[in-house]
Amino acid sequence: MKTLFIGGIKSGKSRSAENYIKKLSDKKPVYLATTEFIDDEMQERIAQHQQQRKSDFITVEEAINLKEKIALQEGAVLVECLSMWINNMLYREKSYAQMEAEVANILELKQDIVFVINDVSCGIIPENKLARQFVDISGKLSQLVAQKCDEVYHVVAGISTQIK
Amino acid sequence: MKTLFIGGIKSGKSRSAENYIKKLSDKKPVYLATTEFIDDEMQERIAQHQQQRKSDFITVEEAINLKEKIALQEGAVLVECLSMWINNMLYREKSYAQMEAEVANILELKQDIVFVINDVSCGIIPENKLARQFVDISGKLSQLVAQKCDEVYHVVAGISTQIK
Amino acid sequence: MKTLFIGGIKSGKSRSAENYIKKLSDKKPVYLATTEFIDDEMQERIAQHQQQRKSDFITVEEAINLKEKIALQEGAVLVECLSMWINNMLYREKSYAQMEAEVANILELKQDIVFVINDVSCGIIPENKLARQFVDISGKLSQLVAQKCDEVYHVVAGISTQIK
Repeated sequence: MKTLFIGGIKSGKSRSAENYIKKLSDKKPVYLATTEFIDDEMQERIAQHQQQRKSDFITVEEAINLKEKIALQEGAVLVECLSMWINNMLYREKSYAQMEAEVANILELKQDIVFVINDVSCGIIPENKLARQFVDISGKLSQLVAQKCDEVYHVVAGISTQIK
Repeated sequence: MKTLFIGGIKSGKSRSAENYIKKLSDKKPVYLATTEFIDDEMQERIAQHQQQRKSDFITVEEAINLKEKIALQEGAVLVECLSMWINNMLYREKSYAQMEAEVANILELKQDIVFVINDVSCGIIPENKLARQFVDISGKLSQLVAQKCDEVYHVVAGISTQIK
Repeated sequence: MKTLFIGGIKSGKSRSAENYIKKLSDKKPVYLATTEFIDDEMQERIAQHQQQRKSDFITVEEAINLKEKIALQEGAVLVECLSMWINNMLYREKSYAQMEAEVANILELKQDIVFVINDVSCGIIPENKLARQFVDISGKLSQLVAQKCDEVYHVVAGISTQIK
Protein backbone atom coordinates (compact mmCIF):
# COMPACT_ATOMS: atom_id res chain seq x y z
CA MET A 1 0.00 0.00 0.00
CA LYS A 2 1.39 3.37 -1.07
CA THR A 3 -0.37 6.63 -0.29
CA LEU A 4 0.28 10.31 -1.03
CA PHE A 5 -0.93 13.35 0.90
CA ILE A 6 -0.48 16.63 -1.00
CA GLY A 7 -1.48 20.07 0.26
CA GLY A 8 -0.21 23.60 0.78
CA ILE A 9 1.67 25.16 3.67
CA LYS A 10 -0.18 24.60 6.98
CA SER A 11 -2.94 22.80 5.12
CA GLY A 12 -3.01 20.02 7.70
CA LYS A 13 -1.46 17.46 5.31
CA SER A 14 0.97 16.16 7.94
CA ARG A 15 -1.65 15.64 10.58
CA SER A 16 -3.96 13.98 8.05
CA ALA A 17 -1.15 11.64 6.99
CA GLU A 18 -0.29 10.84 10.61
CA ASN A 19 -3.89 9.94 11.44
CA TYR A 20 -4.08 7.84 8.29
CA ILE A 21 -0.92 5.78 8.89
CA LYS A 22 -1.85 5.04 12.51
CA LYS A 23 -4.90 3.18 11.21
CA LEU A 24 -2.98 1.20 8.57
CA SER A 25 -1.73 -1.49 10.93
CA ASP A 26 -1.47 -2.49 14.59
CA LYS A 27 2.30 -2.12 14.49
CA LYS A 28 3.69 1.24 15.56
CA PRO A 29 4.44 3.26 12.43
CA VAL A 30 7.78 4.86 11.62
CA TYR A 31 8.12 8.61 11.22
CA LEU A 32 10.95 9.26 8.76
CA ALA A 33 12.01 12.88 9.26
CA THR A 34 13.87 14.23 6.23
CA THR A 35 14.68 17.60 7.80
CA GLU A 36 18.33 18.56 7.75
CA PHE A 37 18.93 22.29 7.76
CA ILE A 38 17.48 23.85 10.83
CA ASP A 39 17.11 27.48 11.78
CA ASP A 40 15.13 28.79 14.74
CA GLU A 41 11.88 29.02 12.82
CA MET A 42 12.25 25.43 11.62
CA GLN A 43 13.11 24.29 15.13
CA GLU A 44 9.83 25.71 16.32
CA ARG A 45 7.87 23.92 13.59
CA ILE A 46 9.64 20.66 14.36
CA ALA A 47 8.95 20.99 18.08
CA GLN A 48 5.27 21.52 17.28
CA HIS A 49 5.20 18.43 15.08
CA GLN A 50 6.98 16.31 17.68
CA GLN A 51 4.48 17.42 20.28
CA GLN A 52 1.66 16.32 17.95
CA ARG A 53 3.26 12.91 17.40
CA LYS A 54 3.94 12.14 21.04
CA SER A 55 4.54 8.45 21.48
CA ASP A 56 2.55 7.20 18.51
CA PHE A 57 5.58 6.85 16.24
CA ILE A 58 9.10 5.49 16.12
CA THR A 59 11.09 8.45 14.78
CA VAL A 60 14.09 7.96 12.49
CA GLU A 61 16.00 10.61 10.55
CA GLU A 62 17.48 10.54 7.08
CA ALA A 63 18.08 13.53 4.81
CA ILE A 64 19.24 11.80 1.61
CA ASN A 65 19.20 7.99 1.29
CA LEU A 66 15.51 7.43 1.85
CA LYS A 67 15.20 4.09 0.12
CA GLU A 68 17.97 2.50 2.18
CA LYS A 69 16.49 3.84 5.41
CA ILE A 70 12.93 2.82 4.59
CA ALA A 71 14.02 -0.72 3.66
CA LEU A 72 15.39 -1.18 7.20
CA GLN A 73 12.06 -0.46 8.90
CA GLU A 74 9.48 -3.01 9.95
CA GLY A 75 6.30 -0.94 10.28
CA ALA A 76 4.59 1.35 7.83
CA VAL A 77 6.73 4.40 7.04
CA LEU A 78 5.61 8.01 6.89
CA VAL A 79 7.99 10.04 4.69
CA GLU A 80 7.78 13.53 6.18
CA CYS A 81 8.34 15.12 3.84
CA LEU A 82 9.40 14.75 0.21
CA SER A 83 9.67 18.53 -0.21
CA MET A 84 12.42 18.79 2.39
CA TRP A 85 14.20 15.87 0.76
CA ILE A 86 14.09 17.60 -2.66
CA ASN A 87 15.59 20.60 -0.92
CA ASN A 88 18.40 18.48 0.55
CA MET A 89 19.09 16.87 -2.82
CA LEU A 90 19.21 20.24 -4.60
CA TYR A 91 21.61 21.54 -1.95
CA ARG A 92 23.95 18.65 -2.77
CA GLU A 93 23.56 19.40 -6.49
CA LYS A 94 21.89 16.09 -7.23
CA SER A 95 20.15 15.95 -10.60
CA TYR A 96 16.46 15.45 -11.23
CA ALA A 97 17.30 12.06 -12.76
CA GLN A 98 18.89 10.99 -9.48
CA MET A 99 15.84 12.07 -7.52
CA GLU A 100 13.52 10.31 -9.93
CA ALA A 101 15.55 7.10 -9.65
CA GLU A 102 15.53 7.21 -5.86
CA VAL A 103 11.78 7.78 -5.75
CA ALA A 104 11.17 5.00 -8.27
CA ASN A 105 13.23 2.65 -6.09
CA ILE A 106 11.27 3.61 -2.99
CA LEU A 107 8.01 2.94 -4.79
CA GLU A 108 9.13 -0.64 -5.49
CA LEU A 109 9.65 -1.48 -1.82
CA LYS A 110 7.03 -3.88 -0.49
CA GLN A 111 6.31 -1.87 2.66
CA ASP A 112 3.37 0.38 3.40
CA ILE A 113 4.61 3.90 2.73
CA VAL A 114 2.79 7.20 3.18
CA PHE A 115 4.32 10.21 1.43
CA VAL A 116 3.73 13.84 2.32
CA ILE A 117 4.54 16.61 -0.17
CA ASN A 118 3.98 20.33 -0.11
CA ASP A 119 1.95 21.65 -3.05
CA VAL A 120 3.93 24.65 -4.32
CA SER A 121 2.42 24.71 -7.80
CA CYS A 122 -0.30 27.37 -7.63
CA GLY A 123 1.55 30.66 -7.23
CA ILE A 124 2.99 32.74 -10.02
CA ILE A 125 6.18 31.42 -11.64
CA PRO A 126 8.98 32.47 -9.25
CA GLU A 127 11.59 34.94 -10.52
CA ASN A 128 14.34 33.05 -8.71
CA LYS A 129 15.76 30.28 -10.91
CA LEU A 130 16.39 27.83 -8.06
CA ALA A 131 12.83 28.34 -6.84
CA ARG A 132 11.52 27.65 -10.37
CA GLN A 133 13.61 24.49 -10.48
CA PHE A 134 12.23 23.43 -7.10
CA VAL A 135 8.63 23.99 -8.24
CA ASP A 136 9.22 21.96 -11.39
CA ILE A 137 10.88 19.05 -9.60
CA SER A 138 8.23 19.08 -6.90
CA GLY A 139 5.50 18.89 -9.53
CA LYS A 140 7.13 16.14 -11.55
CA LEU A 141 7.87 13.98 -8.50
CA SER A 142 4.33 14.55 -7.20
CA GLN A 143 3.02 13.17 -10.48
CA LEU A 144 5.40 10.23 -10.39
CA VAL A 145 4.46 9.29 -6.83
CA ALA A 146 0.73 9.86 -7.36
CA GLN A 147 0.75 7.64 -10.43
CA LYS A 148 2.19 4.72 -8.46
CA CYS A 149 0.19 5.25 -5.29
CA ASP A 150 -2.93 3.28 -4.49
CA GLU A 151 -4.52 6.30 -2.84
CA VAL A 152 -3.94 10.05 -3.17
CA TYR A 153 -5.40 12.69 -0.86
CA HIS A 154 -5.59 16.43 -1.54
CA VAL A 155 -5.63 18.42 1.70
CA VAL A 156 -7.26 21.86 2.00
CA ALA A 157 -7.93 23.58 5.34
CA GLY A 158 -7.28 20.36 7.22
CA ILE A 159 -9.80 18.41 5.19
CA SER A 160 -8.39 15.61 3.07
CA THR A 161 -10.29 14.63 -0.06
CA GLN A 162 -9.42 11.37 -1.79
CA ILE A 163 -8.71 12.14 -5.46
CA LYS A 164 -7.41 8.66 -6.34
CA MET B 1 -24.98 26.58 10.73
CA LYS B 2 -21.38 27.54 10.04
CA THR B 3 -19.85 27.42 6.56
CA LEU B 4 -16.43 28.13 5.07
CA PHE B 5 -15.58 29.10 1.48
CA ILE B 6 -11.87 28.82 0.69
CA GLY B 7 -10.26 29.59 -2.66
CA GLY B 8 -7.45 31.54 -4.31
CA ILE B 9 -7.34 35.12 -5.58
CA LYS B 10 -10.21 35.80 -8.02
CA SER B 11 -11.37 32.23 -7.66
CA GLY B 12 -14.98 33.32 -7.29
CA LYS B 13 -15.10 32.40 -3.58
CA SER B 14 -16.87 35.64 -2.59
CA ARG B 15 -19.57 35.34 -5.21
CA SER B 16 -20.09 31.68 -4.32
CA ALA B 17 -20.43 32.60 -0.64
CA GLU B 18 -22.84 35.43 -1.43
CA ASN B 19 -25.08 33.16 -3.48
CA TYR B 20 -24.96 30.56 -0.73
CA ILE B 21 -25.91 32.85 2.15
CA LYS B 22 -28.81 34.39 0.24
CA LYS B 23 -30.41 30.93 0.19
CA LEU B 24 -29.83 30.23 3.87
CA SER B 25 -32.86 32.16 5.13
CA ASP B 26 -35.63 34.55 4.08
CA LYS B 27 -34.14 37.31 6.21
CA LYS B 28 -31.77 39.68 4.44
CA PRO B 29 -28.20 38.58 5.23
CA VAL B 30 -25.51 40.81 6.70
CA TYR B 31 -22.33 41.51 4.79
CA LEU B 32 -19.56 42.10 7.33
CA ALA B 33 -16.76 43.92 5.52
CA THR B 34 -13.42 43.57 7.32
CA THR B 35 -11.51 45.84 4.95
CA GLU B 36 -9.61 48.64 6.60
CA PHE B 37 -6.55 49.80 4.67
CA ILE B 38 -7.56 51.05 1.29
CA ASP B 39 -5.44 52.10 -1.65
CA ASP B 40 -6.74 52.86 -5.15
CA GLU B 41 -6.46 49.28 -6.31
CA MET B 42 -8.41 48.08 -3.26
CA GLN B 43 -11.00 50.78 -3.79
CA GLU B 44 -11.63 49.42 -7.27
CA ARG B 45 -12.02 45.86 -5.99
CA ILE B 46 -14.41 47.03 -3.29
CA ALA B 47 -16.50 49.01 -5.77
CA GLN B 48 -16.76 45.92 -7.94
CA HIS B 49 -17.88 43.81 -4.99
CA GLN B 50 -20.43 46.40 -3.89
CA GLN B 51 -21.86 46.49 -7.39
CA GLN B 52 -22.21 42.70 -7.26
CA ARG B 53 -23.99 42.83 -3.92
CA LYS B 54 -26.49 45.54 -4.86
CA SER B 55 -29.37 45.56 -2.44
CA ASP B 56 -29.24 41.93 -1.38
CA PHE B 57 -27.28 42.60 1.81
CA ILE B 58 -27.18 44.83 4.87
CA THR B 59 -23.56 46.00 4.92
CA VAL B 60 -21.72 46.59 8.19
CA GLU B 61 -18.00 47.23 8.71
CA GLU B 62 -15.62 46.01 11.36
CA ALA B 63 -11.87 45.57 11.02
CA ILE B 64 -11.00 44.00 14.39
CA ASN B 65 -13.74 43.01 16.86
CA LEU B 66 -15.61 40.57 14.68
CA LYS B 67 -17.27 38.54 17.42
CA GLU B 68 -18.81 41.63 19.07
CA LYS B 69 -20.09 42.90 15.73
CA ILE B 70 -21.48 39.56 14.60
CA ALA B 71 -23.33 39.06 17.89
CA LEU B 72 -25.27 42.30 17.22
CA GLN B 73 -26.71 41.10 13.93
CA GLU B 74 -30.05 39.40 13.40
CA GLY B 75 -29.63 37.74 10.02
CA ALA B 76 -27.00 35.32 8.79
CA VAL B 77 -23.58 36.96 8.62
CA LEU B 78 -21.07 36.75 5.78
CA VAL B 79 -17.55 37.45 7.08
CA GLU B 80 -15.78 38.95 4.07
CA CYS B 81 -13.06 38.14 4.59
CA LEU B 82 -10.96 36.46 7.28
CA SER B 83 -7.76 37.14 5.31
CA MET B 84 -8.20 40.88 5.54
CA TRP B 85 -8.97 40.55 9.24
CA ILE B 86 -5.73 38.58 9.82
CA ASN B 87 -3.96 41.40 8.01
CA ASN B 88 -5.57 43.99 10.29
CA MET B 89 -4.65 41.98 13.39
CA LEU B 90 -1.03 41.57 12.28
CA TYR B 91 -0.82 45.30 11.62
CA ARG B 92 -1.85 45.89 15.24
CA GLU B 93 0.73 43.34 16.39
CA LYS B 94 -1.87 40.97 17.79
CA SER B 95 -0.60 37.48 18.49
CA TYR B 96 -1.76 34.26 16.87
CA ALA B 97 -3.22 33.23 20.23
CA GLN B 98 -5.41 36.33 20.21
CA MET B 99 -6.65 35.58 16.71
CA GLU B 100 -7.32 31.97 17.58
CA ALA B 101 -9.31 33.01 20.66
CA GLU B 102 -11.40 35.51 18.68
CA VAL B 103 -12.18 32.94 15.99
CA ALA B 104 -13.03 30.30 18.59
CA ASN B 105 -15.44 32.77 20.21
CA ILE B 106 -17.08 33.57 16.87
CA LEU B 107 -17.55 29.88 16.19
CA GLU B 108 -19.54 29.55 19.43
CA LEU B 109 -22.12 32.15 18.43
CA LYS B 110 -25.52 30.65 17.64
CA GLN B 111 -25.99 32.55 14.40
CA ASP B 112 -25.59 31.32 10.85
CA ILE B 113 -22.15 32.49 9.78
CA VAL B 114 -20.44 32.09 6.42
CA PHE B 115 -16.67 32.66 6.37
CA VAL B 116 -14.59 33.53 3.33
CA ILE B 117 -10.82 33.02 3.35
CA ASN B 118 -8.16 33.38 0.69
CA ASP B 119 -6.11 30.24 0.11
CA VAL B 120 -2.49 31.43 0.11
CA SER B 121 -0.92 28.08 0.89
CA CYS B 122 0.17 26.72 -2.48
CA GLY B 123 3.02 28.97 -3.60
CA ILE B 124 6.65 28.61 -2.61
CA ILE B 125 7.52 29.63 0.95
CA PRO B 126 7.83 33.45 0.83
CA GLU B 127 11.24 35.01 1.54
CA ASN B 128 9.60 37.83 3.48
CA LYS B 129 9.17 36.91 7.14
CA LEU B 130 5.87 38.73 7.61
CA ALA B 131 4.47 37.02 4.51
CA ARG B 132 5.56 33.64 5.90
CA GLN B 133 3.85 34.47 9.16
CA PHE B 134 0.69 35.46 7.29
CA VAL B 135 0.68 32.20 5.33
CA ASP B 136 1.10 30.15 8.52
CA ILE B 137 -1.63 31.97 10.41
CA SER B 138 -3.96 31.81 7.45
CA GLY B 139 -3.46 28.06 7.21
CA LYS B 140 -3.89 27.39 10.90
CA LEU B 141 -7.06 29.50 11.16
CA SER B 142 -8.44 27.87 8.00
CA GLN B 143 -8.03 24.50 9.69
CA LEU B 144 -9.61 25.73 12.90
CA VAL B 145 -12.63 27.19 11.12
CA ALA B 146 -13.03 24.22 8.77
CA GLN B 147 -12.97 21.80 11.68
CA LYS B 148 -15.88 23.56 13.37
CA CYS B 149 -17.90 24.29 10.23
CA ASP B 150 -20.81 22.14 9.14
CA GLU B 151 -19.94 22.65 5.50
CA VAL B 152 -16.72 23.60 3.70
CA TYR B 153 -16.45 24.55 0.03
CA HIS B 154 -13.27 24.70 -2.04
CA VAL B 155 -13.61 27.17 -4.90
CA VAL B 156 -11.65 26.85 -8.16
CA ALA B 157 -12.43 28.86 -11.30
CA GLY B 158 -15.77 29.96 -9.87
CA ILE B 159 -16.86 26.39 -9.19
CA SER B 160 -17.36 25.49 -5.55
CA THR B 161 -16.91 21.88 -4.53
CA GLN B 162 -18.15 20.75 -1.14
CA ILE B 163 -15.26 19.02 0.66
CA LYS B 164 -17.03 18.71 4.02
CA MET C 1 -18.35 20.51 -26.23
CA LYS C 2 -16.13 22.87 -24.27
CA THR C 3 -13.79 21.69 -21.53
CA LEU C 4 -11.37 23.35 -19.14
CA PHE C 5 -8.34 21.84 -17.42
CA ILE C 6 -6.98 23.97 -14.60
CA GLY C 7 -3.98 23.12 -12.41
CA GLY C 8 -0.69 24.46 -11.09
CA ILE C 9 2.79 24.41 -12.58
CA LYS C 10 3.83 20.84 -13.53
CA SER C 11 0.54 19.53 -12.21
CA GLY C 12 0.06 17.35 -15.27
CA LYS C 13 -2.79 19.51 -16.63
CA SER C 14 -1.41 19.49 -20.19
CA ARG C 15 -0.97 15.75 -20.34
CA SER C 16 -4.43 15.24 -18.86
CA ALA C 17 -5.93 17.58 -21.47
CA GLU C 18 -4.06 15.84 -24.29
CA ASN C 19 -5.29 12.42 -23.23
CA TYR C 20 -8.80 13.79 -22.94
CA ILE C 21 -8.98 15.44 -26.37
CA LYS C 22 -7.60 12.37 -28.12
CA LYS C 23 -10.68 10.47 -26.96
CA LEU C 24 -13.15 13.18 -28.02
CA SER C 25 -13.30 12.16 -31.68
CA ASP C 26 -11.72 9.90 -34.31
CA LYS C 27 -10.37 12.93 -36.16
CA LYS C 28 -6.83 13.97 -35.28
CA PRO C 29 -7.03 16.89 -32.82
CA VAL C 30 -5.35 20.25 -33.28
CA TYR C 31 -2.75 21.47 -30.81
CA LEU C 32 -2.90 25.27 -30.77
CA ALA C 33 0.36 26.48 -29.27
CA THR C 34 0.09 30.02 -27.91
CA THR C 35 3.77 30.32 -26.96
CA GLU C 36 5.54 33.34 -28.36
CA PHE C 37 8.46 34.51 -26.26
CA ILE C 38 11.04 31.81 -25.99
CA ASP C 39 14.15 31.65 -23.87
CA ASP C 40 16.32 28.59 -23.36
CA GLU C 41 14.33 27.33 -20.41
CA MET C 42 11.09 27.68 -22.38
CA GLN C 43 12.67 25.93 -25.35
CA GLU C 44 13.42 22.96 -23.15
CA ARG C 45 9.85 22.82 -21.84
CA ILE C 46 8.48 23.05 -25.38
CA ALA C 47 10.77 20.28 -26.60
CA GLN C 48 9.55 18.09 -23.77
CA HIS C 49 5.92 18.79 -24.65
CA GLN C 50 6.50 18.12 -28.34
CA GLN C 51 8.13 14.81 -27.48
CA GLN C 52 5.05 13.91 -25.44
CA ARG C 53 2.70 14.80 -28.29
CA LYS C 54 4.56 12.92 -31.01
CA SER C 55 2.32 12.38 -33.98
CA ASP C 56 -1.03 12.46 -32.20
CA PHE C 57 -1.75 16.11 -33.02
CA ILE C 58 -1.74 18.61 -35.86
CA THR C 59 0.22 21.52 -34.39
CA VAL C 60 -0.61 25.13 -35.26
CA GLU C 61 0.72 28.29 -33.65
CA GLU C 62 -0.99 31.53 -32.78
CA ALA C 63 0.01 33.97 -30.07
CA ILE C 64 -2.86 36.49 -30.26
CA ASN C 65 -5.86 35.92 -32.55
CA LEU C 66 -7.05 32.65 -31.11
CA LYS C 67 -10.66 32.84 -32.26
CA GLU C 68 -9.72 33.38 -35.90
CA LYS C 69 -7.22 30.52 -35.80
CA ILE C 70 -9.55 28.10 -34.02
CA ALA C 71 -12.37 28.82 -36.50
CA LEU C 72 -10.12 27.60 -39.33
CA GLN C 73 -9.59 24.15 -37.82
CA GLU C 74 -11.61 21.03 -38.55
CA GLY C 75 -10.86 18.82 -35.56
CA ALA C 76 -11.19 19.46 -31.87
CA VAL C 77 -8.80 22.17 -30.71
CA LEU C 78 -6.59 22.10 -27.62
CA VAL C 79 -5.71 25.67 -26.55
CA GLU C 80 -2.31 25.27 -24.89
CA CYS C 81 -2.41 27.46 -22.98
CA LEU C 82 -4.58 30.42 -22.03
CA SER C 83 -1.98 31.61 -19.51
CA MET C 84 0.63 32.16 -22.19
CA TRP C 85 -1.95 33.96 -24.31
CA ILE C 86 -2.81 36.31 -21.42
CA ASN C 87 0.91 36.97 -21.16
CA ASN C 88 1.11 37.79 -24.88
CA MET C 89 -1.91 40.10 -24.64
CA LEU C 90 -0.49 41.95 -21.62
CA TYR C 91 2.81 42.39 -23.45
CA ARG C 92 0.92 44.11 -26.27
CA GLU C 93 -0.93 46.26 -23.70
CA LYS C 94 -4.31 44.80 -24.54
CA SER C 95 -7.00 45.51 -21.96
CA TYR C 96 -8.88 42.97 -19.88
CA ALA C 97 -12.04 43.91 -21.82
CA GLN C 98 -10.33 42.89 -25.05
CA MET C 99 -9.28 39.57 -23.58
CA GLU C 100 -12.74 38.94 -22.21
CA ALA C 101 -14.31 39.71 -25.61
CA GLU C 102 -11.92 37.37 -27.42
CA VAL C 103 -12.58 34.54 -24.97
CA ALA C 104 -16.34 35.09 -25.18
CA ASN C 105 -16.10 34.87 -28.97
CA ILE C 106 -14.10 31.65 -28.79
CA LEU C 107 -16.69 30.14 -26.48
CA GLU C 108 -19.38 30.74 -29.10
CA LEU C 109 -17.61 28.71 -31.77
CA LYS C 110 -19.34 25.42 -32.52
CA GLN C 111 -16.19 23.33 -32.36
CA ASP C 112 -14.98 21.07 -29.60
CA ILE C 113 -12.45 23.10 -27.66
CA VAL C 114 -10.32 22.08 -24.69
CA PHE C 115 -8.71 24.91 -22.73
CA VAL C 116 -5.69 24.62 -20.46
CA ILE C 117 -4.95 27.30 -17.87
CA ASN C 118 -2.35 27.56 -15.14
CA ASP C 119 -3.81 28.09 -11.66
CA VAL C 120 -1.78 30.96 -10.19
CA SER C 121 -4.31 31.96 -7.56
CA CYS C 122 -3.10 30.30 -4.37
CA GLY C 123 0.12 32.09 -3.47
CA ILE C 124 0.39 35.31 -1.53
CA ILE C 125 -0.59 38.48 -3.39
CA PRO C 126 2.49 39.36 -5.49
CA GLU C 127 4.32 42.61 -4.72
CA ASN C 128 4.89 43.24 -8.43
CA LYS C 129 1.96 45.14 -9.95
CA LEU C 130 2.08 43.38 -13.32
CA ALA C 131 2.11 40.01 -11.58
CA ARG C 132 -0.93 41.06 -9.54
CA GLN C 133 -2.68 42.10 -12.73
CA PHE C 134 -1.82 38.76 -14.31
CA VAL C 135 -3.20 36.84 -11.34
CA ASP C 136 -6.44 38.82 -11.43
CA ILE C 137 -6.96 38.42 -15.16
CA SER C 138 -6.11 34.74 -15.00
CA GLY C 139 -8.69 34.24 -12.26
CA LYS C 140 -11.43 36.20 -13.97
CA LEU C 141 -10.92 34.46 -17.32
CA SER C 142 -10.80 31.06 -15.59
CA GLN C 143 -14.19 31.81 -14.10
CA LEU C 144 -15.58 33.00 -17.44
CA VAL C 145 -14.37 29.92 -19.28
CA ALA C 146 -15.42 27.49 -16.52
CA GLN C 147 -18.90 28.99 -16.45
CA LYS C 148 -19.41 28.29 -20.17
CA CYS C 149 -17.68 24.92 -20.26
CA ASP C 150 -19.60 21.65 -20.18
CA GLU C 151 -16.88 20.02 -18.13
CA VAL C 152 -14.15 21.40 -15.85
CA TYR C 153 -11.26 19.36 -14.44
CA HIS C 154 -9.00 20.36 -11.56
CA VAL C 155 -5.58 18.73 -11.85
CA VAL C 156 -3.37 17.97 -8.82
CA ALA C 157 -0.28 15.73 -8.97
CA GLY C 158 -1.29 14.44 -12.41
CA ILE C 159 -4.73 13.41 -11.22
CA SER C 160 -7.63 15.24 -12.79
CA THR C 161 -10.84 15.52 -10.80
CA GLN C 162 -14.02 16.62 -12.56
CA ILE C 163 -15.47 19.56 -10.63
CA LYS C 164 -18.17 20.41 -13.19
